[in-house]
Amino acid sequence: MEKVLGLTVTDEGVDDCMVDTNSSIRSRLCAIVGEDSVRDSANERHAYSYDATPIVTGAPDWIVFPQTTRQVSEVLRLANEERIPVIPRGSGTNLAGGTVAVAAGIVLNMTRFNRIVEIDESNLTVTVGPGVITADLHRAVEARGLFYPPDPGSMRISTIGGNVAQGAGGMRGLKYGVTKDYVLGLEYVLPTGEILRCGGKNYKDVAGYDLTRLLVGSEGTLAVITELTLKLLPLPESKRTMVVYCKRMVDAARIVERTIAAKIIPATMEFLDQSTMRVVDQFAHLGLPTDVAAMLLIEQDGVEQQVDRDIDRIAQIARKVGATDVQVANTPEDGARLMAARRSALAALSRLRPTTILEDATVPRSELATMVSEIERIAEKYQVQICTFGHAGDGNLHPTCMTDERDAEELERVDAAFAEIFEVALRLGGTITGEHGVGMAKAKFLPKRVGEDGIQLMMRLKQAFDPNGILNPGKIFVRVPDWQHVAE
Amino acid sequence: MEKVLGLTVTDEGVDDCMVDTNSSIRSRLCAIVGEDSVRDSANERHAYSYDATPIVTGAPDWIVFPQTTRQVSEVLRLANEERIPVIPRGSGTNLAGGTVAVAAGIVLNMTRFNRIVEIDESNLTVTVGPGVITADLHRAVEARGLFYPPDPGSMRISTIGGNVAQGAGGMRGLKYGVTKDYVLGLEYVLPTGEILRCGGKNYKDVAGYDLTRLLVGSEGTLAVITELTLKLLPLPESKRTMVVYCKRMVDAARIVERTIAAKIIPATMEFLDQSTMRVVDQFAHLGLPTDVAAMLLIEQDGVEQQVDRDIDRIAQIARKVGATDVQVANTPEDGARLMAARRSALAALSRLRPTTILEDATVPRSELATMVSEIERIAEKYQVQICTFGHAGDGNLHPTCMTDERDAEELERVDAAFAEIFEVALRLGGTITGEHGVGMAKAKFLPKRVGEDGIQLMMRLKQAFDPNGILNPGKIFVRVPDWQHVAE
Repeated sequence: MEKVLGLTVTDEGVDDCMVDTNSSIRSRLCAIVGEDSVRDSANERHAYSYDATPIVTGAPDWIVFPQTTRQVSEVLRLANEERIPVIPRGSGTNLAGGTVAVAAGIVLNMTRFNRIVEIDESNLTVTVGPGVITADLHRAVEARGLFYPPDPGSMRISTIGGNVAQGAGGMRGLKYGVTKDYVLGLEYVLPTGEILRCGGKNYKDVAGYDLTRLLVGSEGTLAVITELTLKLLPLPESKRTMVVYCKRMVDAARIVERTIAAKIIPATMEFLDQSTMRVVDQFAHLGLPTDVAAMLLIEQDGVEQQVDRDIDRIAQIARKVGATDVQVANTPEDGARLMAARRSALAALSRLRPTTILEDATVPRSELATMVSEIERIAEKYQVQICTFGHAGDGNLHPTCMTDERDAEELERVDAAFAEIFEVALRLGGTITGEHGVGMAKAKFLPKRVGEDGIQLMMRLKQAFDPNGILNPGKIFVRVPDWQHVAE
Repeated sequence: MEKVLGLTVTDEGVDDCMVDTNSSIRSRLCAIVGEDSVRDSANERHAYSYDATPIVTGAPDWIVFPQTTRQVSEVLRLANEERIPVIPRGSGTNLAGGTVAVAAGIVLNMTRFNRIVEIDESNLTVTVGPGVITADLHRAVEARGLFYPPDPGSMRISTIGGNVAQGAGGMRGLKYGVTKDYVLGLEYVLPTGEILRCGGKNYKDVAGYDLTRLLVGSEGTLAVITELTLKLLPLPESKRTMVVYCKRMVDAARIVERTIAAKIIPATMEFLDQSTMRVVDQFAHLGLPTDVAAMLLIEQDGVEQQVDRDIDRIAQIARKVGATDVQVANTPEDGARLMAARRSALAALSRLRPTTILEDATVPRSELATMVSEIERIAEKYQVQICTFGHAGDGNLHPTCMTDERDAEELERVDAAFAEIFEVALRLGGTITGEHGVGMAKAKFLPKRVGEDGIQLMMRLKQAFDPNGILNPGKIFVRVPDWQHVAE
């Protein structure tokens, strides 16, 4: 018999005698969003007790599906009055426990806000509901010859609202920036129910504090986002892909460095370490060489002549540094085949053992090779299995541990290994999270990153938005402050 | 005899019998920064009673020149204890009264922090003190083949700390973004004296709330910035300039729109209206045609082939729309000559009458022509003289009024005209300030832009940073809240 917070799971099914049946709250919620938009069966509550993060779970009391901003406002007002936690959620692809209900309450499922409101080709903006799937957004704007560059790994499933709440990254960070650089304006609802707007379609706007950028990456702890206006670029004309195999990780890092020193900024520069390559090859049978230390996947986009020129120059740089092999794709299909190794990395690694912990330690690009070798040293030290892949162009690494959460002793060693990995990342001038967010998973490391005074300042900012601490409690900050009253 | 707040100015000079001679504060300040870094003669106080903003003035009690972060911290601690206002200041080129002391206190002159600490060519970052002059920063990084794109009009005088505090823009906003997009990390001091760091050299960092982006554009009201880490790009290889003359403003707007629709994003697209052109030509004798409605100055940079191709295509677009003349510069010197018209606009306009009010109303690019014609209508309505020039690429307009602050009746009409201009800008989806900041000048319009709830939220954020309200009081917010105790 397992215990998932708030529910008892037996062989017979889910025992819901411990479910909160506060029918007054329930009927008030139904009055706001409609009866069929409030769910609280034991099965639904179990389904919403986890996201894509391993190990952490917590069942909510209700899952509510608002359809309008006004409904979001009324739900929040109710929750604020009654001191009920509210956890905003998109597709639940969060990797740091960001959408897990630590103290029950209401999961506010925003997926009904799935309209593309407007594509403004004159002003190069798109306005969308937070529930639009990011890949659908890509398709819609690309059909008009426009481009929304952020491409987080989860994009075929995740929502743009979730991306913005987390400050998602993706593969094109070095050349194109991240989600944070594309948010021009938001409509949002405070935990106390007020509906506000910040920013708009203006590329330049310094009227008052930059609430738009403060809300991006605030992990659903400051406000609920109900509409977004994003910046677009013209769609690049062409794109080419190449792969480089290196005997040593430091060669891969050197190729990255010299490419940038040559003033070439590729659209993507991804890498896989040797252990990742082996696992991926077993899974996807791509015929990857397994005796090399690293592979680099590089894409450039833009005007065709420029792209061809850049790819040729990168190939030259790679050969000069001593790459064992360089392959340039001649067709988009070949390019996709080469990228498949990188895109299937997580899926391949996830098959090995029951629990896959995908982490997010980031360092300045110049420290890439050092960090990768430190991760290897640490994995060896704690006798845990860690494969590393990630975004070579911006230093955002994904050390990924294959383990089994049922093995408490091993999990202790895994925790110790990651604690040391974060310590090293910080020592090298890096950060504890480049794109996944702090959530629950990294809350204990945040004080080391931002300092105790930084934590205090952030908690005061949190209080300015959320005086009763109802919005996504237990995320970002380890301590629940006195003023944060959560439902028992 | 004139009265400048806090001082009486007579024909004999400045009468300093009203100067606060709190010698205890003075000696404590001297103990922190050194005797020669504290100034409070009547002349100095008069010199620091204004910035580049017309009309508004206010003398401080002391001007303090700290040299280290620790000194900044100690000055702030003292000021916070004694409830003395502190006004951070760089070169004083602010156009919204941002560095004027409304309630006396300490002007904290940050110009001694003028070191370029490090140019990191591997990670494409530069770390500087806030007192570095922006043009000096440009020179230093360009000498290494690197590029810091933001180029506010004041750059030969203004400091990078001032640019960041204001969220300065410049001419390259459409293609390269603004100051806000280039700040990776900061060291800063809270009004209560704590020294903190946020961000760093990482291009991706989502560890906690984005304090870095919140501080950019916070106008010296949340913290004092003591060090900055900025993002750089590779320096573009080449650049070309062209000018386009149009019979009608709407033609100029159409050329801008079709250029972008053709997926060409030029580095700059500046315009001058007819009245600005006339004044500039009288001043600079550039031989500008004076019978056209608008001129567009367009620059493209990048790889030479690409630049040539883009410039040719823009010229074709311009001719197709019906431009009366298109001139493409063949040498950098010719290019500079063409740009001289735009760069001398403010200087030329300033010569006409004693008071020049340079404003900053911004609209989405698609509304450019409408906004310009509305400004003309409004100037006619109130019988005031307004010339308009600005950044056609991003809708950031500079309606500039030539007037005389000594004529109270005219100044009333000028105020009414600008109030209507901002109303129209907001109605068209724009904002009250694209790059100059709210300061004192636009504080009364901020509630219309962000709403009363927005004001309340921003004031709570202010309180989280500055519980005693000592940092740059009287800026951004019209109301001084109860809790903001300022020295009398």
